Amino acid sequence: MILEKIKTPGLSHLSYLIGSGGQAAVIDPRRDCDIYVEKARSEGLRITHIFETHRNEDLVSGAPILAAMTGAEVLHGPNADGDVVYARTTHDGDSHKIGQLEIRTLETPGHTFDHCAYAIFDSEYPDKAVGVFTGDALFVGDVGRTDFYPDRKREVASLLYDSLRKICDLGDQAIIYPAHGAGSVCGSGMAEREFSTVGHERRNNPLLQIADREAFIERKVNENHYQPPYFRLMEHLNLVGGESAPRVLKPQPMSLGELSSCDADKVIDVREPLAYAAGHLPGSINLPVGMIPAFAGWFVAEGEKLALVASSHDQLSSSMEHLVRIALDNIVGGYVGVVPAAASGKSMRSIPMIGTEEVERRLQEKSGDWTLLDVRDADERQAQAIEGSRHIYVGELHEKWKDLDPGQRYTLMCASGMRATVAAGWLDAHGFDQLDVYLGSMGAWKAAHS
Amino acid sequence: MILEKIKTPGLSHLSYLIGSGGQAAVIDPRRDCDIYVEKARSEGLRITHIFETHRNEDLVSGAPILAAMTGAEVLHGPNADGDVVYARTTHDGDSHKIGQLEIRTLETPGHTFDHCAYAIFDSEYPDKAVGVFTGDALFVGDVGRTDFYPDRKREVASLLYDSLRKICDLGDQAIIYPAHGAGSVCGSGMAEREFSTVGHERRNNPLLQIADREAFIERKVNENHYQPPYFRLMEHLNLVGGESAPRVLKPQPMSLGELSSCDADKVIDVREPLAYAAGHLPGSINLPVGMIPAFAGWFVAEGEKLALVASSHDQLSSSMEHLVRIALDNIVGGYVGVVPAAASGKSMRSIPMIGTEEVERRLQEKSGDWTLLDVRDADERQAQAIEGSRHIYVGELHEKWKDLDPGQRYTLMCASGMRATVAAGWLDAHGFDQLDVYLGSMGAWKAAHS
Amino acid sequence: MILEKIKTPGLSHLSYLIGSGGQAAVIDPRRDCDIYVEKARSEGLRITHIFETHRNEDLVSGAPILAAMTGAEVLHGPNADGDVVYARTTHDGDSHKIGQLEIRTLETPGHTFDHCAYAIFDSEYPDKAVGVFTGDALFVGDVGRTDFYPDRKREVASLLYDSLRKICDLGDQAIIYPAHGAGSVCGSGMAEREFSTVGHERRNNPLLQIADREAFIERKVNENHYQPPYFRLMEHLNLVGGESAPRVLKPQPMSLGELSSCDADKVIDVREPLAYAAGHLPGSINLPVGMIPAFAGWFVAEGEKLALVASSHDQLSSSMEHLVRIALDNIVGGYVGVVPAAASGKSMRSIPMIGTEEVERRLQEKSGDWTLLDVRDADERQAQAIEGSRHIYVGELHEKWKDLDPGQRYTLMCASGMRATVAAGWLDAHGFDQLDVYLGSMGAWKAAHS
Amino acid sequence: MILEKIKTPGLSHLSYLIGSGGQAAVIDPRRDCDIYVEKARSEGLRITHIFETHRNEDLVSGAPILAAMTGAEVLHGPNADGDVVYARTTHDGDSHKIGQLEIRTLETPGHTFDHCAYAIFDSEYPDKAVGVFTGDALFVGDVGRTDFYPDRKREVASLLYDSLRKICDLGDQAIIYPAHGAGSVCGSGMAEREFSTVGHERRNNPLLQIADREAFIERKVNENHYQPPYFRLMEHLNLVGGESAPRVLKPQPMSLGELSSCDADKVIDVREPLAYAAGHLPGSINLPVGMIPAFAGWFVAEGEKLALVASSHDQLSSSMEHLVRIALDNIVGGYVGVVPAAASGKSMRSIPMIGTEEVERRLQEKSGDWTLLDVRDADERQAQAIEGSRHIYVGELHEKWKDLDPGQRYTLMCASGMRATVAAGWLDAHGFDQLDVYLGSMGAWKAAHS
Repeated sequence: MILEKIKTPGLSHLSYLIGSGGQAAVIDPRRDCDIYVEKARSEGLRITHIFETHRNEDLVSGAPILAAMTGAEVLHGPNADGDVVYARTTHDGDSHKIGQLEIRTLETPGHTFDHCAYAIFDSEYPDKAVGVFTGDALFVGDVGRTDFYPDRKREVASLLYDSLRKICDLGDQAIIYPAHGAGSVCGSGMAEREFSTVGHERRNNPLLQIADREAFIERKVNENHYQPPYFRLMEHLNLVGGESAPRVLKPQPMSLGELSSCDADKVIDVREPLAYAAGHLPGSINLPVGMIPAFAGWFVAEGEKLALVASSHDQLSSSMEHLVRIALDNIVGGYVGVVPAAASGKSMRSIPMIGTEEVERRLQEKSGDWTLLDVRDADERQAQAIEGSRHIYVGELHEKWKDLDPGQRYTLMCASGMRATVAAGWLDAHGFDQLDVYLGSMGAWKAAHS
Repeated sequence: MILEKIKTPGLSHLSYLIGSGGQAAVIDPRRDCDIYVEKARSEGLRITHIFETHRNEDLVSGAPILAAMTGAEVLHGPNADGDVVYARTTHDGDSHKIGQLEIRTLETPGHTFDHCAYAIFDSEYPDKAVGVFTGDALFVGDVGRTDFYPDRKREVASLLYDSLRKICDLGDQAIIYPAHGAGSVCGSGMAEREFSTVGHERRNNPLLQIADREAFIERKVNENHYQPPYFRLMEHLNLVGGESAPRVLKPQPMSLGELSSCDADKVIDVREPLAYAAGHLPGSINLPVGMIPAFAGWFVAEGEKLALVASSHDQLSSSMEHLVRIALDNIVGGYVGVVPAAASGKSMRSIPMIGTEEVERRLQEKSGDWTLLDVRDADERQAQAIEGSRHIYVGELHEKWKDLDPGQRYTLMCASGMRATVAAGWLDAHGFDQLDVYLGSMGAWKAAHS
Repeated sequence: MILEKIKTPGLSHLSYLIGSGGQAAVIDPRRDCDIYVEKARSEGLRITHIFETHRNEDLVSGAPILAAMTGAEVLHGPNADGDVVYARTTHDGDSHKIGQLEIRTLETPGHTFDHCAYAIFDSEYPDKAVGVFTGDALFVGDVGRTDFYPDRKREVASLLYDSLRKICDLGDQAIIYPAHGAGSVCGSGMAEREFSTVGHERRNNPLLQIADREAFIERKVNENHYQPPYFRLMEHLNLVGGESAPRVLKPQPMSLGELSSCDADKVIDVREPLAYAAGHLPGSINLPVGMIPAFAGWFVAEGEKLALVASSHDQLSSSMEHLVRIALDNIVGGYVGVVPAAASGKSMRSIPMIGTEEVERRLQEKSGDWTLLDVRDADERQAQAIEGSRHIYVGELHEKWKDLDPGQRYTLMCASGMRATVAAGWLDAHGFDQLDVYLGSMGAWKAAHS
Repeated sequence: MILEKIKTPGLSHLSYLIGSGGQAAVIDPRRDCDIYVEKARSEGLRITHIFETHRNEDLVSGAPILAAMTGAEVLHGPNADGDVVYARTTHDGDSHKIGQLEIRTLETPGHTFDHCAYAIFDSEYPDKAVGVFTGDALFVGDVGRTDFYPDRKREVASLLYDSLRKICDLGDQAIIYPAHGAGSVCGSGMAEREFSTVGHERRNNPLLQIADREAFIERKVNENHYQPPYFRLMEHLNLVGGESAPRVLKPQPMSLGELSSCDADKVIDVREPLAYAAGHLPGSINLPVGMIPAFAGWFVAEGEKLALVASSHDQLSSSMEHLVRIALDNIVGGYVGVVPAAASGKSMRSIPMIGTEEVERRLQEKSGDWTLLDVRDADERQAQAIEGSRHIYVGELHEKWKDLDPGQRYTLMCASGMRATVAAGWLDAHGFDQLDVYLGSMGAWKAAHS
């Protein structure tokens, strides 16, 4: 018997392979799904079931692709919006045998209307569930978002309240296997720790400490969440079934000439922010490879033709993996070598870094043509903000930059300087040329003022 | 934060790397311990603590080696027999910080007197333990052996009874992380499933269903266990500290000539049993690579010079890994190519396979010079045996073969034919030449008589 | 600049990736061609050219598949039989630029009419070719077969004579990069060594020592070669373009029940010959994994539904890789666990091994119902044979077994016992039940009689 | 038979594993030499010989370490300075059998007095050498340096002249296997291409076109070469035998606090130059991971305690590999996370990038307190230099920086900006605070002025 977690970095997406007696099931597979087949077959397991906890909004589901590769059946909860084309609907109490395991469906709406959890029973040790795949209902230290139906937000929060009780009713002994870990866009309060049980969450998860339904609803409807535009595309693809990922997740290498003439909609520099800041190709934006999963879906629109700039071919490959998982497939190629580009005579742009002292000096100066622009999210902003700074969330900058004045000077800040550089890169590519970044940002500010 | 299980195949030994905040601990490391350092450093973790749940008897501990590589401290429970040279003694209630984790010592004697479990607390979510490293006290579906102190067997069974209660007192929500999974020589009743919690075990583990202390003791003292002779060596090494494993776990390749002249104490053919049976070099015994962890310690004595015969160089490597983990290091080399040896004129031996019908015929014939020799263990034998068969446990054959008569005919049997072939190989190498193996063995017998 | 050899084990097929200045070419890619794209892109190279030295008869060409993945152009020599659908025809003297490299076409008919070699020049060091891809014209220690046009065999041998001179005219300094190494079905005289030059071959290759055209032709037309039936299929696929390999080259695992009911046309046991001999499922034939490339194309017909039996899932995977490379794709699944099958009550078959003494005894006995059947190839048979033995080449047994009498006794022999067991397995699956194998075979015979 | 090139990136060091008949030899192994044992044993080969072409000055030899691991004998040419402690001396014409291969010693002094080449003969195809390990005598496109004996430079150049003739006398057909490829500090004129033959070099290698001995000597004694100080240490270690590399080539991870208090002699920031330039910890120097092999030996002295700063743990590992290969082992740990350091309040430094226009403006301005400092090597400087710039070779800056004035302003330049940033980092760590880097450097200058 095996139960293996397959983690998708960046998205902090957790999928699972569970097997017994020559059979296996996969829970919430991602798009590049050869890995499940490889693992299962290496263990002598035939994948017969694919369970989706809900229609994912943050990544392309691999369920229809994996089903085509293996002949397995996809199970999905009841969906009021219309059927998931590639799945059979499973209902509360349905039982699915995987060798000596039994997987039992629990309808747990709230995060989405079609959300299900799947409890794990061992028929040889059958007294109560040994674990439960909780999807986006219950995380370690947090619970699922309920902001996807703005008109019905109290209703879905209330549904989630009931669903969480239903999961808790499995008993303290049940290990929880959620669909996301810390770092996901699907919840900001998750614990760093990825292992827990119903019993431990019941005692420690802040959201499960709220006994009163109304208090819970109140808490949920007052949360701040952002919905990157690509969520719409994911929801559509995960209803009709997305296409297979390319076989080779490495972009075609490009020369500088090819990069210049490739006519990409966006040139994305995936190097680390400081490298981008010191020197980058004019017109390129910065999405450091590790920030692609969280931010590419804000800055890149469906179908846009992308060219990448990186420090190494490995970095290009990782970037393409991230992009493909959210259906941003139209990658014409990748270029490595920014300093060589400079040495070939290509003009370069840079964005200076400034420190706390300089920011303080400017704040005191109160020059009318200078703005300290804070790109953190609403929760961070609410916790503490620098007086005199202006706020636009980095993810929304792709639209709200139009409210800014290219003739003015801007210093970008976030919590550390990473997202600030991404934001500065966007502005740099859109005609702003009096930009700098507060390196250290809110962290440095706090350290200097504590 | 990470918690990763490192599984040693064959021994079914489970060790763990747990880390938080740049620090990490390893629980019960095995001898070839580069893997823990590699993993920890790749995750940005410095190994600061090594916890031993008890003095292992079935494998060489990597604790002193890993301590030397990393500067970490080894923690070990109080040992009445004298101190574990390389460890600091930890006592009930001691608390050890690993980033935001707290590891708390629970003295849990029974399997051994020095046995400890280590409970895991998350200081950010501190209400009750989130998990516990249970060592050889509590397994999934079974509890530890208590046969190591034959004079005090009721006493240690009683101690284990208390220790299990102590673990259960951590609460149903605690995930258990035992030192062994199914297939280990440290317990035969373990579940196939490797994930469980205190709560699930409390409800399902047969040994935890025995509420009465005396009944529990009775049950434990009546268990049948075997102690391979190498256990003594492991216990010694794990008191004083074993040496590092060789850097390259692949044996020196040998030609047929080198094999013939290498003067090995044992030539071990690690191919699958059927291949050995059809043709093998005279004098070689059979220990299929997957059976080395369980059986090499019976047939090979400390310090013996070993030569291996295999189907491939990969098989040689896996064999050496298994042997090194139990301190059978004196491997002069490995030879690949049994059919080529035959083609070079080397004489070969074979052991025929026979089926149920032939066994039945011989049983009816009741010939005085023929014996059906059952090499299964006492529990299996007790469950069901073929009338007229004789019993010697395969592990004990290395001594008890002397009671057999090389002038007689023997058919070896076990549950399937695997251990029977190992047993036949031992006899073949010791001058018996009227041997065959009942292919299918007890399994086939039952199928034919059900 | 890189030049990397990608070797396909079993087939001893050699393909090459050569790159310079951001561009790359692949020479004679195999069907599972992700590897070329992975390697090229990791090195920052865009594959722009694919060169085929000729229409391969022994494996599925990856050229059309690789072209579709990369946009590269396929180059192929002039083909009198009609065009290779997916390729552009290249002619003598055509020059192709890959960065600072120049690849120049040399028409070199003989092995096939469309055969080309491709000389490598370095434009920065341009005095004479630095190497040459020789395809199946010139190998290390041998030259290509010329038996594919039985009606025109003198003509093609004469063409090859000229082609070899043309290659030699590149100069002694040119390194040769042939399409096959030792062990290929495309030539039996190849050296073990895989590196050589035109100059070293000119001095040492036995076929290049034959200065006289007529003597060369005579030598070639008198060679013995076998053409497995699958060559026809390869030739067809490599004209029209074969399909991509499956994404996961691991067969679906099967239970014993699934194996029994899967209705396969052939059950192929891929374990080593001795394991098969000691015990195998009735009806299964034996093609040890390493012998699949050379022999599957004899015993398996196009489109047949195959089930595999193996010792491990790794062995299943290797077997599927081999089968897919020669378009034997219809693999319904694989079963691991022959001894467990016996233990479940499944009846088993074995084939005894006998040694030189027993063979001698039987030969002297001259019993009319016993035959010593030698399955080596014609060249081996011609070199030395055991008096009184009968000859059928193992590859031809799939047809010629009909000339044998299932009521008779047969001892199979080859050079060592490997191919003899394959042959015995075929007969065993076709109703012969008085079979044994001469373990050691001709090798042991020679050793005993020298 | 195998011949495999093992390439050490950065050093562009080429070592070889050659094997036949169950035996193998390694030529010029590097310090981390498990790889040779792993490869050999996986191929069924016993390493029996280790050949050193000369006493390496640019890396720690693995010969004594590999000898201890395998029992192989080390062969080394006659050494006038005293014996290589761990080796047996081999002389011109000595023959060494490796299966069917014969390796024949050719004394080829010049690069060093003890230099030998080793010709490869195949006893089955014995007419002339099939290849030759040329060490640092003959490269593809270049020949070895002869600057190690300044008092006897004409003598060694003349010896090399003869040695090259001796190698050429092996015949055009011999493939050459040199000890270095393009990018090595052991020669700047090497071709990008790594495959060649005596015949191709005889026609194309510029140094082999100089027929006249005196002209050759003149050419060699007029070459410019740099000798990093660590060469002395390597020469010593490679006489007496260096120690084994650590088992795990990953540095201990450090927190920012540990980094601050670790009391390292040097803090080396191994990130890419642009990232370092935008923000780095005060006092840290910049040696981008790929530049460590060429430049660490200039800036780091024997035995210095090193701490590393990197973008990722992978980068830390690669850096440690590079450092260990040149005996810079005293690595206390590595820190990842420069932006987080800033966010924790740590003050940061940056070095601005400027472009061609700004450089031109300043040159015209001719301000007395500003210097354009060119850190390229003498050959590059000689080919073309910007008027008004000053020259100090980057490698020599660790001493010559004392000639500069921290009160002045410096713009650093090289060919592209990479080495310029390394140089700027050194000055930044030594109290210069009016620094910038000409991004694009000579390359951009040429592009702007062509």
